[in-house]
Amino acid sequence: MTEQPQKISDRFDIGTIFGQDLRQLRRERGLSQEEFGFECELHRTYISLLERGKRIPSLTTIIQLAMALDVPPSEIVRRVESRMGWNE
Amino acid sequence: MTEQPQKISDRFDIGTIFGQDLRQLRRERGLSQEEFGFECELHRTYISLLERGKRIPSLTTIIQLAMALDVPPSEIVRRVESRMGWNE
Repeated sequence: MTEQPQKISDRFDIGTIFGQDLRQLRRERGLSQEEFGFECELHRTYISLLERGKRIPSLTTIIQLAMALDVPPSEIVRRVESRMGWNE
Repeated sequence: MTEQPQKISDRFDIGTIFGQDLRQLRRERGLSQEEFGFECELHRTYISLLERGKRIPSLTTIIQLAMALDVPPSEIVRRVESRMGWNE
């Protein structure tokens, strides 16, 4: 019997990792969740859900967030993969 | 009256851009949609929908696809943002 490889979502809490990075980026810019939500045209409560890892963003949402943070979307994803130990 | 900024999803067909990049990466690896779907534990029909821009992937899906393609998830996103003219 061979072991089934574990799903990525079982091995990593991607939502939590992403949310922590998002919160840090937002705070670095001195924005409240409300101000940030206004900038990226997303509701404050959705920003809160993302930061708490309760929602996983779509690619479109990542791009919207990145535009408001003035950081390339790939940089946000790079932070997540780095914390997943992608290059280790 | 000030113009409302257009939503990112109105200005770019992110699904189509992503789908074209995904198809290219899959073909470079000589994989059929079925073989690729098996590798990333996603159904062949979902791969087809993604490649045709009919579905927008979540961050979790991007990571799953990237693992099967053996490319960092941020590299897939970097290709999309480059085709959106992010740095222009």
